[in-house]
Amino acid sequence: MYRIVIDGMGGDFAPDEIVKGVHAALEEDPEIFAIIVGDEKKLEPLVEELGLPADRFRIVHTEQFITMDDPPKEALDLKPEASIIVASKLLAAGEGDALVSAGNTGATILAASRNIPRMPGIERAALAAVFPAVKNHPDDPGKTIMLDVGATLHCTPNQLVNFAFMGKHYAAEVLGIENPRIALLNIGEEDTKGHEVLVETHAKLREIPELHFIGNVEGKDIMRGVADVIVTEGYVGNIVLKALEGLAELAFEMGKKAWKKNVVAKMGIAMLAPLIRKVKHRVDYTEYGGAPILGFQKLVVKAHGRSNAKAIKNAILLAKKSAENRMVEMLQHSIKEYYLHMLEG
Amino acid sequence: MYRIVIDGMGGDFAPDEIVKGVHAALEEDPEIFAIIVGDEKKLEPLVEELGLPADRFRIVHTEQFITMDDPPKEALDLKPEASIIVASKLLAAGEGDALVSAGNTGATILAASRNIPRMPGIERAALAAVFPAVKNHPDDPGKTIMLDVGATLHCTPNQLVNFAFMGKHYAAEVLGIENPRIALLNIGEEDTKGHEVLVETHAKLREIPELHFIGNVEGKDIMRGVADVIVTEGYVGNIVLKALEGLAELAFEMGKKAWKKNVVAKMGIAMLAPLIRKVKHRVDYTEYGGAPILGFQKLVVKAHGRSNAKAIKNAILLAKKSAENRMVEMLQHSIKEYYLHMLEG
Repeated sequence: MYRIVIDGMGGDFAPDEIVKGVHAALEEDPEIFAIIVGDEKKLEPLVEELGLPADRFRIVHTEQFITMDDPPKEALDLKPEASIIVASKLLAAGEGDALVSAGNTGATILAASRNIPRMPGIERAALAAVFPAVKNHPDDPGKTIMLDVGATLHCTPNQLVNFAFMGKHYAAEVLGIENPRIALLNIGEEDTKGHEVLVETHAKLREIPELHFIGNVEGKDIMRGVADVIVTEGYVGNIVLKALEGLAELAFEMGKKAWKKNVVAKMGIAMLAPLIRKVKHRVDYTEYGGAPILGFQKLVVKAHGRSNAKAIKNAILLAKKSAENRMVEMLQHSIKEYYLHMLEG
Repeated sequence: MYRIVIDGMGGDFAPDEIVKGVHAALEEDPEIFAIIVGDEKKLEPLVEELGLPADRFRIVHTEQFITMDDPPKEALDLKPEASIIVASKLLAAGEGDALVSAGNTGATILAASRNIPRMPGIERAALAAVFPAVKNHPDDPGKTIMLDVGATLHCTPNQLVNFAFMGKHYAAEVLGIENPRIALLNIGEEDTKGHEVLVETHAKLREIPELHFIGNVEGKDIMRGVADVIVTEGYVGNIVLKALEGLAELAFEMGKKAWKKNVVAKMGIAMLAPLIRKVKHRVDYTEYGGAPILGFQKLVVKAHGRSNAKAIKNAILLAKKSAENRMVEMLQHSIKEYYLHMLEG
């Protein structure tokens, strides 16, 4: 059994959709044991109503929780028994194999950083985003992982190399991408582009035989599926990710507006509906489960704040897959080899 | 008369489309005098064929020029008489009021930096991008200017404040936006978000009464028209701009692919054609003329490398407008006031 710890109180639709998602995950995968952290007065009626099998879950009670709008630092200090802190401590104590939270992103990263030990050799945690990219051949999984997108604003070359390893193993062991192509996000393709940290990172990545490093990529390449893993510092990754999400949302809104205003456009959009559904399905976060927070001794999956039951179920399945395929152990092995090679010179 | 210096040899369609663009600009605006820099053996037949009025232009001859693919530094060193260098020197010598080039972006920025003095008080130049944003009310010009997008990779707070002033005056005197709203691109809206440079920049911008500073904006806000001027360092601006361009291009390609494959989708797209044309018109660089390179004692307008005659004409009209509305003088005045206030404490 794989023991997945779930923050029962985190997310816009907690605890209802969280518990429904747990229920769906338990039904779909018999190897999951759920540890739901939160207020038992709220969780127990839901669990009973849905009929969760008694031997497949337990509730760890705590009354405190962090809301989506709480300032992370202050909230964590004021609520030492918040569900995300209790959940992180369970993981640190070896009582769970991975953690899923749909709560406040900043608080999730900070609670994990404060309570779960980082993997030896990893200097900083990274929040990764998984998004759909162009499929360049029939077997192409059409997924790109970009990290960091907000956990570590500025990075040293060694930290960016850490991220490359973290991205590689998430892509390989959780997303099932063989020998993932790794790229560095930069302002141009040439090896010497960008500021010192990027030039030095590029040179380091080139020298590591365990990494399938394909060089620099530019902003325009992000959605094109030219790389499976795109490495960048959190400051840039965060702004780029939100810019892309913002443009996609804007295009969608403009389509809706035209729909309301214009009869011919309305017919046109109706005829394109199957195509639009296809695209929408591909960028639907409920299908992808969540964003991994990497660098700790256990995987933390940050599900979207607006997660419904399906999104929670998929986040739990991702978390389980990481444990099943021993992602953390594989990453630990790679990192160890990297440092040993480096020491040998 | 406003004397606009034009690199006659820069751009994918030089010199033909450049000279045609000059011709169109002279026809549209009687106050423009064109100084075309380039190979007279190539320029003169074009000028004659189009019948440019002899008292409205002159050619400054040079045989050397930089191609679009030349590495900027090496090319400028190898070709000291390259048209963009000669053009920059004319500006520096006071023989022109503004400069337009559709050539190699890196070479244009570098040639300007080496030859045209920066404005006193301005530490670094910035390349700005002007793009269409959502119109939030009927009088909204629907344009946003983002700077820097690639001239200065990393910036100090004072340099970012310089950029805010530069963006303000380009928006006001060239784009005609009254009291432009200025924002800082950041990872969150709160005043204390981001790394030290951003926090310090935010605090400085808040204190300057001449700037209509509206606070931080996130990546998702870029296209929404929430600000007229978005300030960022070149490293982030470049990656974000290319990411947005890349996604727009990808969406366009996906539409074309669907068009070829699917009859119903084809009819749908045909019905949407007027809408698509409207959107395309708004993002059409030939309408916008070019990206200003700001910070020098004269304005440099970088037209797109793929510029046709219409794009060149619009770039020349922008350059003339900057001279006519005394953009550089207004900016100089603002910067002086800023430093004087600062000295007064």
